[in-house]
Amino acid sequence: MSDIKTYMQGVGVAARAAARQMAQADTATKNKALLAIADAILSASTHLIAENAKDVAAARSHGLDDASIDRLTLTEKSVRGMAEGLQQIATLPDPIGGITDLSYRPSGIQVGKMRVPLGVIGIIYESRPNVTADAAGLCLKSGNAAILRGGSEAIHSNQAIAACVHAGLQAAGLPANAVQVISTTDRAAVGELITMKDYVDVIVPRGGKGLIERISNEARIPVIKHLHGVCHVYIDSEADLDKAIRIADNAKTHRYGVCNAMETLLVHSDVAAQVLPKLCKIYLDKGVELRGDDTARKLVAQMSAATEEDWYTEYLAPILSIRVVAGLDGAMDHIARYGSQHTESIVTENYTKAMRFLREVDSSSVMVNASTRFADGFEYGLGAEIGISTDKIHARGPVGLEGLTSQKYIVLGNGQIRS
Amino acid sequence: MSDIKTYMQGVGVAARAAARQMAQADTATKNKALLAIADAILSASTHLIAENAKDVAAARSHGLDDASIDRLTLTEKSVRGMAEGLQQIATLPDPIGGITDLSYRPSGIQVGKMRVPLGVIGIIYESRPNVTADAAGLCLKSGNAAILRGGSEAIHSNQAIAACVHAGLQAAGLPANAVQVISTTDRAAVGELITMKDYVDVIVPRGGKGLIERISNEARIPVIKHLHGVCHVYIDSEADLDKAIRIADNAKTHRYGVCNAMETLLVHSDVAAQVLPKLCKIYLDKGVELRGDDTARKLVAQMSAATEEDWYTEYLAPILSIRVVAGLDGAMDHIARYGSQHTESIVTENYTKAMRFLREVDSSSVMVNASTRFADGFEYGLGAEIGISTDKIHARGPVGLEGLTSQKYIVLGNGQIRS
Repeated sequence: MSDIKTYMQGVGVAARAAARQMAQADTATKNKALLAIADAILSASTHLIAENAKDVAAARSHGLDDASIDRLTLTEKSVRGMAEGLQQIATLPDPIGGITDLSYRPSGIQVGKMRVPLGVIGIIYESRPNVTADAAGLCLKSGNAAILRGGSEAIHSNQAIAACVHAGLQAAGLPANAVQVISTTDRAAVGELITMKDYVDVIVPRGGKGLIERISNEARIPVIKHLHGVCHVYIDSEADLDKAIRIADNAKTHRYGVCNAMETLLVHSDVAAQVLPKLCKIYLDKGVELRGDDTARKLVAQMSAATEEDWYTEYLAPILSIRVVAGLDGAMDHIARYGSQHTESIVTENYTKAMRFLREVDSSSVMVNASTRFADGFEYGLGAEIGISTDKIHARGPVGLEGLTSQKYIVLGNGQIRS
Repeated sequence: MSDIKTYMQGVGVAARAAARQMAQADTATKNKALLAIADAILSASTHLIAENAKDVAAARSHGLDDASIDRLTLTEKSVRGMAEGLQQIATLPDPIGGITDLSYRPSGIQVGKMRVPLGVIGIIYESRPNVTADAAGLCLKSGNAAILRGGSEAIHSNQAIAACVHAGLQAAGLPANAVQVISTTDRAAVGELITMKDYVDVIVPRGGKGLIERISNEARIPVIKHLHGVCHVYIDSEADLDKAIRIADNAKTHRYGVCNAMETLLVHSDVAAQVLPKLCKIYLDKGVELRGDDTARKLVAQMSAATEEDWYTEYLAPILSIRVVAGLDGAMDHIARYGSQHTESIVTENYTKAMRFLREVDSSSVMVNASTRFADGFEYGLGAEIGISTDKIHARGPVGLEGLTSQKYIVLGNGQIRS
């Protein structure tokens, strides 16, 4: 334990020193490093897959479930995907150094803001080796130093990827310590990482709700976190019902295991009889289990009764809860009470109701006439995504490069003093 | 203790409910409330001063120091100042609901951001009754609910001001619970406030370093904090020496007890002999005690030797430490090592050095040819200031209304689904 502490403090000191260099790195140098890392990963493909095979074999012998083993496994295609992700980050605009809102004040000074890196970013994630390359690339491009702590099942894969990252950084003349991948699987390392106030500026946990809640409770450093997504679609009485059915279908069935999938459908009582039988047939044909309130169940026979707990539940599965509401206020009350402030969408042609929903619903993404599945950094044009934040402080919704930065004030004067 | 917990939970529940109403309040209603509070304060002037006199008498009998009693005392002028501050907040633009960056994506959806309140803001401050009115006004205008916990010495004053705030809120049809002023002086209330994750979204502590460090260590809620200001002015070899002397004089002597006052002067060795004797005469004439390194002391006889600790010290007093450095890199190394990332200024006519200083110095305000005393919400045009943040997350530098808000994503579609 005291060895881990010493090791992590060393990592922290090295990260802080590297962060100062990274903050000053110019765009061309950072892009050169990103492309060099991509090249190193492509060249090492066979080695990466061999190292990954050790992790996969160990995971199988420990009885890890199939879905987790699937996420752990590297293939030639997924290795190529990692490299392409880094090449894509190289094409994104560099946020660092950008100056905005520079204007003259009555005193004669010009005041504006300059975008700067946060400093050292600690990322804690589960056994998905591709996150190692992805997170390294995003931190690098945004001028930060990164401390990466992946799941212990991926230790060989992550160390092999780390070697590629270090080679690429050094090829561009940047410090290898700009990206450090924790080499111990001891869980005490996480405890140190999330409490090293002097060396780490922000923690980004990526993984299941349990991991994120634990980190969030124990961290002594700001956390950018995504807790869960109980997303709603509300079909209003003035909805275009074709759009409504298309959107409600897509929001639930496009992918089930994702945070921006709809988990509860709210339908205005005036149109429930028109919409629900048709829509529920689509769901049932696709094998979606339906749980509804009494009114909904009267319209669709193959629907079980939803419990109070259902309304709070993120299924991440082909299960949908359905409630018939009296109107917009009923829908918004339901969302305020049971929602997770992730993503909600209204389907309506009524201008005033659309505007009220946009303004009054307190979620990281609020939509009109669009599928909740659009809540995504790529769909929003961020170019890349380190995660989705359900917090309100600092970053909210999909977090791209800009979420890994801050702004400082700059003042340009000509000898001005305060009088 | 369990009574305090129950009391504070009740405050939290009420604040959360009020926050939902405040988020939806329109600009005219919020401004009406601000002006009504100002009127109530002006009408209650005699009563406020009488209640304040109880606090001042008790503080004197407990032996509170003169400076603290000065900050505690309300006069007709300071009561008028509170009202004027609220009237001024009413004139500021409403940040809430503002939509920016709305643009079309290839999928056909429009994506943008809408500015929204943070929710419930907890403000903890020392015995300065004017902060009660000021903080209430800023939270109100930014659509948040506020829980205010002022210093126990100001309890009568704060409760009297709270009555005016409630009267004004109700006159405008807004919930009185939008601003709650804690009515107990029990310190356990602070412990509850900074850990009520479900009811409070952000904590803003205002006061001395000890208070802020303690709150920051114990809080389970994000904290927007200002720790300390060890501000530097660097006079470069290519400085206009008239500007240099004017700025270095103003940065130190305009006011001593403020966070944006210069505490350490750095001078390039090429111009030290030209600048320091003249500048130090000004300081000595104004009664500023000088502490310098060996080189500086050879140029100015009345300078004692600075210790290592001096370079870290925020004097908040007529004391200045002075170091002669070899150049820009030496100055920036000193700032990185000893500074508090608050405000630093370079005096130079050299373009490249000015740009490097702006980019490379990692402080909340970085200036060229201007006095550090400009680091202030009013001087920057924010219109009002809840404090200055020395953090990087969420808000950095002077924090105005915008620092009490967040942005959510909005998506405007026409039936789009994800393919």
